[in-house]
Amino acid sequence: MTVPTLLVLDADPLPRLGRLTGRVRIEHADASTLAERLPHADVLLVWDFTSHAVREAWPGEGPRPRWVHTASAGVDHLLGPELAASDTVVTNARGIFDRPIAEYVAALVLAFAKDLPRTLEFQRERTWRHRETRRVAGTRAVVVGSGPIGRAIAGTLTALGVTTALVGRAERTGVHGPDDLDRLIAGADWVISAAPLTDRTRGMFDARRFGVMQPSAHFVNVGRGQLVVEEALAEALRRRWIAGAALDVFAAEPLAPDSPLWEVPGLVVSPHMSGDTVGWRDELADQFVELYELWAAGRPLVNVVDKQRGYVPGH
Amino acid sequence: MTVPTLLVLDADPLPRLGRLTGRVRIEHADASTLAERLPHADVLLVWDFTSHAVREAWPGEGPRPRWVHTASAGVDHLLGPELAASDTVVTNARGIFDRPIAEYVAALVLAFAKDLPRTLEFQRERTWRHRETRRVAGTRAVVVGSGPIGRAIAGTLTALGVTTALVGRAERTGVHGPDDLDRLIAGADWVISAAPLTDRTRGMFDARRFGVMQPSAHFVNVGRGQLVVEEALAEALRRRWIAGAALDVFAAEPLAPDSPLWEVPGLVVSPHMSGDTVGWRDELADQFVELYELWAAGRPLVNVVDKQRGYVPGH
Repeated sequence: MTVPTLLVLDADPLPRLGRLTGRVRIEHADASTLAERLPHADVLLVWDFTSHAVREAWPGEGPRPRWVHTASAGVDHLLGPELAASDTVVTNARGIFDRPIAEYVAALVLAFAKDLPRTLEFQRERTWRHRETRRVAGTRAVVVGSGPIGRAIAGTLTALGVTTALVGRAERTGVHGPDDLDRLIAGADWVISAAPLTDRTRGMFDARRFGVMQPSAHFVNVGRGQLVVEEALAEALRRRWIAGAALDVFAAEPLAPDSPLWEVPGLVVSPHMSGDTVGWRDELADQFVELYELWAAGRPLVNVVDKQRGYVPGH
Repeated sequence: MTVPTLLVLDADPLPRLGRLTGRVRIEHADASTLAERLPHADVLLVWDFTSHAVREAWPGEGPRPRWVHTASAGVDHLLGPELAASDTVVTNARGIFDRPIAEYVAALVLAFAKDLPRTLEFQRERTWRHRETRRVAGTRAVVVGSGPIGRAIAGTLTALGVTTALVGRAERTGVHGPDDLDRLIAGADWVISAAPLTDRTRGMFDARRFGVMQPSAHFVNVGRGQLVVEEALAEALRRRWIAGAALDVFAAEPLAPDSPLWEVPGLVVSPHMSGDTVGWRDELADQFVELYELWAAGRPLVNVVDKQRGYVPGH
């Protein structure tokens, strides 16, 4: 048996693949060399999860990797029509980001409730300005996205005493279907977007949805930027349709220095970091190594993406 | 029986005493009139919990209120030696601030873990700067103060997966004694100060204690300003003995505009608001009305302060 070729679409720092050393032929590619190298690879590791190069470079016919793994939860950046139609298996980093993102959302919810951004502003002005803040326990949240990340967010908010509803693609036990969404967000203090980006979810947070929310509501997006119509959110904040928002993801990343989003009143902008806690890259590499062991042994992979739906289905 | 006289040391807005209307003679005082009116009052409600007027105005001998209630958890601002030695009963607002302060501490812990203050700085500079953040679950906290506020803080941090130790005046089940303090803070990621201000606790967070903490540790004070040697904390932050801190309370409040504390690197300054959620003043007034009903019926009061110790003892 020949040694399999593992092609890595790289980003700094390189993945630490430990015990795979010597057992695979590891080749590296960047956006400019990916198309040329893909036909010779058995496995593709999309380590640069910010790149859209796979969509463009994926071969229409002929030899191609039998398995593609992405070091991310979302797969929208690589899942073009040819890859979706092929028999190549796609896996993702399901599980790595759940708890970190849940904590990040809790941090934002509590920061808004306790008015922390304004406290820091007053501190800069050396101004002592007492305000009344909000109690988080007893408030209501809606989490859109019922995968592991959405469920972890719901679990953490529930632990803080927040009554939390999950909304998914289809109704099932403990999860509301899309038909309940408008009713739920109309009564929510916190609307959390943690859905995968698919044709069904693109632009789902638009002017109409922000209009449905309460003036005291806050919106947080930790899913994908294109879930949100960014201009509609900016307008909703300027008109005070809602009280505040936080975006960790954007339609175009990194956010350009001249984007108007940086200065929208009541908007917190962060650089796509909600899931990235110390050691995350090593966790991602370890997860790939474990999947590789399954693949090399001919056993079924886990975290397999449903390429029609655009995410890993499951409870 | 004559109608009792209730003297209120006022602050804006006045307390809403609802069903007491007509059942007591309500008189109002400020710092300048308190001494003159105290001898004629049966009950004193210290509504202006920022005032130190009671310490100064309390009569040494002769007629005086039989009961003093303060709309605060701390009693250090009113408990002078004459009042402590008298047979006047002192009660406090135990119970009102527990959950709000616990949420406030959780907000600060999560904000530090997720580097939120720096995110807001980068946003002002329109700078996209990805960082790795910390996972809160699995970290260690020490909460100094084992009353209802300290216990609520411990409960909320525990719900976020933080391993939390409580330190109180004496060792008991679930609570460490003072002998364990230095060992515990030496291993803590988060050191939370929520103790009452007494002769034993004044200045307990000094240069030596900040020196014992880890360079990655954060310190939060929601107790009383004088628990902390402020210059020592500022120096510890400047020298990076610890990673960050948040003060909601200060030796002198409001913090003067020219205080150096406003600009200490890594220090979050907030205006003594951690317990003050929307509706808190009405909750404080309702709590006093309920205590008054007990007092008027000749039944034992609750929330009775041990005037030697300086707090309400109990589990």
